[in-house]
Amino acid sequence: MIREEVAKGIWKIRIGEPETHTPVSLHPFQIKKNELELLEGEVKSPEVLNELEWKESARGITVTLPMDSTEDIYGFGLQLKNMNHAGRKRFVKVNSDPPVDTGESHAPVPFYVSTAGYGLLADSFRYLSFYMGTVSEKGVSEHKKEVNVPHEEFSESALYALKRAKEKRKIIIEIPGVKGIDLYFFAGDVKKAVQRYNLFSGGGCLPPMWGLGMWYRTYGGSDQKKVMELAEQFRKERMPVDVLGLEPGWQSHSYSCTYEWSYLFKNPQEMIDSLNREGYKLNLWEHVFVYPAAPFYEEVKKYSGNYEVWNGLVPDFATTGASEIFGDYHKVKFIENGIMGFKLDECDNSDYNASNWSFPDSTSFPSGMDGEQMHMAIGMLYQNLMYKTFKEKNTRTYSQVRSSGALAAPLPFVLYSDLYNHKQFIRGMVTSGFSGLLWAPEVRNCMDGNDLLRRLQTIVFSEQALFNSWRIPSPPWKQVDIEKNLAGEWMEDAPYYTDICRKFFELRMQLLPYLYSAFVEYHRKGIPPIRALVMDYPKEEEARNIDDEYLFGSSMLVCPLTAEDGTSRRIYLPAGTWHDFFTGEVLEGGRIFEAEADYDKIPVYVKDNTLLPLAAPVQSVERDTVFQIKIAEYGKGAAEFTLYEEDYESFAYETEGMNEVVIQRTQDGKLTFSRKGTGTERYHIKL
Amino acid sequence: MIREEVAKGIWKIRIGEPETHTPVSLHPFQIKKNELELLEGEVKSPEVLNELEWKESARGITVTLPMDSTEDIYGFGLQLKNMNHAGRKRFVKVNSDPPVDTGESHAPVPFYVSTAGYGLLADSFRYLSFYMGTVSEKGVSEHKKEVNVPHEEFSESALYALKRAKEKRKIIIEIPGVKGIDLYFFAGDVKKAVQRYNLFSGGGCLPPMWGLGMWYRTYGGSDQKKVMELAEQFRKERMPVDVLGLEPGWQSHSYSCTYEWSYLFKNPQEMIDSLNREGYKLNLWEHVFVYPAAPFYEEVKKYSGNYEVWNGLVPDFATTGASEIFGDYHKVKFIENGIMGFKLDECDNSDYNASNWSFPDSTSFPSGMDGEQMHMAIGMLYQNLMYKTFKEKNTRTYSQVRSSGALAAPLPFVLYSDLYNHKQFIRGMVTSGFSGLLWAPEVRNCMDGNDLLRRLQTIVFSEQALFNSWRIPSPPWKQVDIEKNLAGEWMEDAPYYTDICRKFFELRMQLLPYLYSAFVEYHRKGIPPIRALVMDYPKEEEARNIDDEYLFGSSMLVCPLTAEDGTSRRIYLPAGTWHDFFTGEVLEGGRIFEAEADYDKIPVYVKDNTLLPLAAPVQSVERDTVFQIKIAEYGKGAAEFTLYEEDYESFAYETEGMNEVVIQRTQDGKLTFSRKGTGTERYHIKL
Repeated sequence: MIREEVAKGIWKIRIGEPETHTPVSLHPFQIKKNELELLEGEVKSPEVLNELEWKESARGITVTLPMDSTEDIYGFGLQLKNMNHAGRKRFVKVNSDPPVDTGESHAPVPFYVSTAGYGLLADSFRYLSFYMGTVSEKGVSEHKKEVNVPHEEFSESALYALKRAKEKRKIIIEIPGVKGIDLYFFAGDVKKAVQRYNLFSGGGCLPPMWGLGMWYRTYGGSDQKKVMELAEQFRKERMPVDVLGLEPGWQSHSYSCTYEWSYLFKNPQEMIDSLNREGYKLNLWEHVFVYPAAPFYEEVKKYSGNYEVWNGLVPDFATTGASEIFGDYHKVKFIENGIMGFKLDECDNSDYNASNWSFPDSTSFPSGMDGEQMHMAIGMLYQNLMYKTFKEKNTRTYSQVRSSGALAAPLPFVLYSDLYNHKQFIRGMVTSGFSGLLWAPEVRNCMDGNDLLRRLQTIVFSEQALFNSWRIPSPPWKQVDIEKNLAGEWMEDAPYYTDICRKFFELRMQLLPYLYSAFVEYHRKGIPPIRALVMDYPKEEEARNIDDEYLFGSSMLVCPLTAEDGTSRRIYLPAGTWHDFFTGEVLEGGRIFEAEADYDKIPVYVKDNTLLPLAAPVQSVERDTVFQIKIAEYGKGAAEFTLYEEDYESFAYETEGMNEVVIQRTQDGKLTFSRKGTGTERYHIKL
Repeated sequence: MIREEVAKGIWKIRIGEPETHTPVSLHPFQIKKNELELLEGEVKSPEVLNELEWKESARGITVTLPMDSTEDIYGFGLQLKNMNHAGRKRFVKVNSDPPVDTGESHAPVPFYVSTAGYGLLADSFRYLSFYMGTVSEKGVSEHKKEVNVPHEEFSESALYALKRAKEKRKIIIEIPGVKGIDLYFFAGDVKKAVQRYNLFSGGGCLPPMWGLGMWYRTYGGSDQKKVMELAEQFRKERMPVDVLGLEPGWQSHSYSCTYEWSYLFKNPQEMIDSLNREGYKLNLWEHVFVYPAAPFYEEVKKYSGNYEVWNGLVPDFATTGASEIFGDYHKVKFIENGIMGFKLDECDNSDYNASNWSFPDSTSFPSGMDGEQMHMAIGMLYQNLMYKTFKEKNTRTYSQVRSSGALAAPLPFVLYSDLYNHKQFIRGMVTSGFSGLLWAPEVRNCMDGNDLLRRLQTIVFSEQALFNSWRIPSPPWKQVDIEKNLAGEWMEDAPYYTDICRKFFELRMQLLPYLYSAFVEYHRKGIPPIRALVMDYPKEEEARNIDDEYLFGSSMLVCPLTAEDGTSRRIYLPAGTWHDFFTGEVLEGGRIFEAEADYDKIPVYVKDNTLLPLAAPVQSVERDTVFQIKIAEYGKGAAEFTLYEEDYESFAYETEGMNEVVIQRTQDGKLTFSRKGTGTERYHIKL
C-alpha cells in the first residue's frame, strides 16, 4: 500500500498492481493543481485513511473502511432514485434502465463523499460494489441478549428493528477481477471534497453561452421542410430557442448508424446554413454502433470489438485508430459544415431489456479492454474524442450523452434519459452535482398543460433547458396530447400556454449571464452550478436529505413543483434571510413551511445581499450579442457579483483570458461596477 | 479441455482448474447410473460439444457455443417472469426479489435445456451470466446495406427491427473469478435432458405421503392457545389439513433467531403431542442467522462468516462443525420431540432492499468459501444438512426453503415466496420443473372470495398445497379481507366459501395416491411431477411458449384461471384425445380454444386411456391410513397405472422396497389389478 499526496488535499493510495485501463489512466485532462492550492480552509488528511484495510482473493480486491451510524453519504454519479446512500449497497454499474434503487445508473461513478469529511474515488472501470454501512463485523452485536419482546404487529417490528441499530458499521468496497487499484481520497466537507474531485478531474466544463439557451429536439419523423417550418414558427412567435436537435430520422439507417443524411433531408447543407443564419445551432442524434453501410465501416472494423450491436460494429475509442476515423469523419462531414453538437444515445447498456441491447461483458476490444470496462468507459471515451475533435476546430460544443462516468467534470456533455418521472428528474439534478455530472430534466410526455408548466419551470433552472419533442410534430404548448398533436389538433387554450411558455423561455434568457458566471466558478473552483443544500449548509441537519430543492448558481434556491404536488409544496429554507425572487418578499430561514405556487409560478429564493444580473432576453445567443444587464438587488448590505466576458464560443479564453466585470454594492447601498480585461465587451450594464 | 462421459448420456468437459467449492463437489448424493442406463431412446453426444470454445481473462472464464435462431431455451432454475430464455441474457444470481426479468431468482440454477437436443450445467457457485443468443460475432451482418427504409412510426420500427434478424447467434457463458470450470452436457430432448440432469443429481425426492396433503401456515401473532383452537376448528369443520406451520412468533427472538420457544408458547411439548395425536405435523419457521441469545451462539461462532446479518452469526454449513452444531441442536430439540419440518426463510439475499439484507459477497467463511459462493450455496447446504439430520432419525421430512440451487432434485424441500402474483405463481410451477426444483404457489393475500377460489384451485394441482395465513388469524374462507379478519369479522358468505374450499381440499386428498406415484417417477426416472407442455409434446410448436398450463403427474393437464381471467381462458390442448376430468366430456386436441370455467371450477383434462386412482378423502394421512381407491377410467383402450405402497414416512423403502400395485385395463375393457411385494397394504382397490 503506497500513499502519496498527489495535489493539495488529495491522497492516492495504491493497492497491489492496478489495471492498465482506468478512469485516471485514460483521462486526458490535467489536475488543476494551482486552483487546488488556492482553495480556502485548513486541509486535514481524512481519518479513515488510517483504518483502511484490504485483502486480495479470487474475486479481486476488497477494501474496508470504518463508518459511523451518523454518517451520510452522497455521490455514485447520477442517481435518480435516492440521494443519501448511507445504509445502502451501491452497485456501480452502467445500466440504461435500473428498475430499483441499486446504485446502477446511466452514469455511475465510483466516487462518494461522506459527511465524515472526505471523498473517495476508486479508479476502476469494473462494476464495483460499495456496501455503505450495511453490515457489522462478526461479534459486534454479541452483547445483545434481549428476547421475548412483545410485538403489536409482530412481523413488521421484528423485520425492521435492525434499521435502528447503532452498532459500528463497515464500508466495504468490492473490486472484482483486479490485482490492484488506486484509491483517491479528497479532504474536506461535502462541498470541498466535491470541489477537489472536480479540480482533480480538470475543473468543470465551460459551455458556449448558446448552450445555456433554450433547446428543442424536433419530432422523430420530421423531414427537412418540417424542421425549417418549425424554426420559422419559433422566430415568428418570438419563442427564444438556441438549439435544434434532430432525432434518428436524420440518418439513412439509425439502429445501427450510417452517419449519413437520410432521404428525409434532401439538401442538409442548405438547411444548416439557413438555420445558422437564424441563430440556431444544430445537434445530431447518433450512437456509436456502426452499420455496414456506414462510409467508415470497413476502415473501423479492425479497431472494433468482437461482437456486433444491432448488426453494427462497436469501435474501440481507446485505440487511436477508431478515435481518428470516427473523429475525422465527424469533423469533415459535420463540424466543418456547421453542426454544433451531438446526442449520443444507447451507450448505457441494458440488462433489463429483452435481448440485452449491447455487447457482452466478455467482449474483447483491440485496446485490451474488455466489455465490462468498455460499458463503463464508452460514454467517457466518446466525450473525450468529440471534445478533442471540436477543439481542433477551436469550437466549443455543448452536447448530450446518455452515459458518463468518473472525472467527467471538464466535458461539456449533459446527461439525459426517458424512463423517469418529474420528481426523479429533479433529484437527478441534485445528485449529479456530487460527482461532476450535468443532467437535463427534459420536458417530455406532459400529461396536461399544468404538467407542461411544471416541467418547464424546472428546466428554466437547470443546466440544459431542453424540450424533447421527438414524439410530437407541434410544440407541446400547442398540444400536449401525443395523439392529437400527431393529428394536428391544437388545444383550446394553446395561446395561453404559448404565452406562459414564452415568459419562462425569456426568464431563462434573462438568467444566462448569471448562470454563465456559475459555470466559470465550476470551471475554476469546481463548484457545481446546481448543488444539493447539504453542500452549502453542511451544519444544518435538515438539509442532509433534501433532494427536491437545490442551489442554482451562487445565490438562488429553487423549489420546483410537479403536477402531482398541485399548487403547494413543503420547503426547507436554510438559516438566514431570504428574498422571494419574483416578489422580493423577505423570508426568514432555518425552517420548514408549506409554500403556495399557482401553476404559472415556481418558488425561487435569493440569498440576502445578492446582486443578480438579469439580461434583456434575446431570441438566441449570437457571436456579437451584447447583453443588456440590469441588476436586481436583494438585501441592503455589502454585496458583489462577477460577470465574465469572452467570445463565448471558442477556446480563446484559455490563452487570452476573460474580462471580469465586478458589480459591487457598498455597505451604504452604493452600486458600482468595474471591468478588468481588454477583451470585447459583451455586457452593457445599466445601474 | 478434458472430455469424459461420466454416465450414460452425460459428458463432463473440464476447462482449466475448477474451484474447490462447487455444486457437484459439495453434493452428497450419488449419480443414479443404473437408472440412466435404463432410460429409453438412442443417445447421441450433443453437436454443440464440437463447437465449444473458451478463453481465460482477468474476469474469469468465458465459454461460447453456437445457437440457432430457431432454438428455444428453458431452465435457469425457478423463473417467475419468463419461461423461454432464447434471445435473453440470464444473470444467474440468487436474489429474493428480482424486480425485472434478468434471470435472478430465489433459486437460480446454472443449468439450461435447449430444443437443439441438450442440457448444460455449469458447475459453479459464482454469479454466472448466460447470453442466450443475444449477440452475433463481428462481421456476421456485414452483408446488410439497406438504407433509407421509410418508417410509418419512425422510432418503434427502427428500434425493434433487430429482433426479427436471422443472423447466427452465440451463447456466451461468463464465469467470473475462476481459473477453470466443469461443464456437464446432458443429451436428449427437453424432457430427456431434464431427466438425465435429475438422475445425475440423485433422482427426484420422495416426500412422505402427508407432505402431499393440505398445508396451513398460521397467523404470525398466534400463541399456543390460538394454534390449538384453529387445529380443533379444522377437524370440527372437517377441513382436511396435514401440516400446520408456525411463523417467526414461535421464537423468543426471530431476526436473528434464538431457535427457542417464545413466551407465546408456554408448553410447546404438550402442543406438539396433542397436535400429533390429531394427525397434524408441525413445521417451524426459521432462518440461519444466529442471534447472540441462541443456545449455540458461542459454539458456532468460530464456524461462522466474518460479518453479521441482523446482529446474528452466519454459520458456514460447508464446515462439519457448524453443520453438526446446527443439526444436532435441531435433532435433539425439535425432531426428536415430534417436529416434522422447517421453513427456511431469508436465505436468498436481497440487493434491492435498502440495507441489503444479507452478508457481503466478499464475506470470508471458515471453509474457504466467500460470500458470493455462500449466497448461491446456503439454501442447498441447509437442505442437505437438514435432510441428513432427519435421515439420522429415519424420518422423511417435506419442508420449505426460500432459496435453492443446482442438483436440488433429491431434496424434499419446496420453494416459496411472496412478491408474486397468481399468474407468476403458476409460471413458477412450470419453470421450476426444468431444473429439479419444486415450487409452492401458496394461497395468500386474496383480493376477494373469487380470488381465493382461483388460488385454491391452483394449489390443489401443485407439489405443495399450501395456505399461507401468516397475516390473518382466521382462515381466508371465513374472511379474505386482512383488516376485517384481524377484527374477527366474517364474510357473509363464509359458509359458501367454506363448503367449496372443503370440496377442493377433499379433491386434493383424492389425488394423493396419483400424485405419490408421480413422485416415485420423479425419484426413479427424474420425470418432474409438474411439467411444461414442451416436455411431453416436444414436436408441437405451439407448446413451446405455454407457461400457464402444465402436466400434473403422468396423465393430467391443468389449466388454472386467475381472478383477472374472470370465468374463461385460452387453452392449448396438445394433439390427441382428451377427457374433461370432472365431466368426462371428450375433446380433440391439437388446437387452441377458449374454455369457460365458473369460479368454482378449474379446467383439467385427462389423456386418453388413463386409469386414474382416486382415494376416498381422509382428514390427514396417518401412519396406518389405508386409502380406499376407486378407479376413474378415461377412454376405452388398453391402459395401466402403478401405485406404490410403503410406510410413506421412513427410509425403509430404500432397503425393503415398495409394493407395486399395477392396475390394468385390457383392450376389451377388462379392469384388473395385481400386487407385487410383501409390504403392508396401503391401498384398498375397489374395481
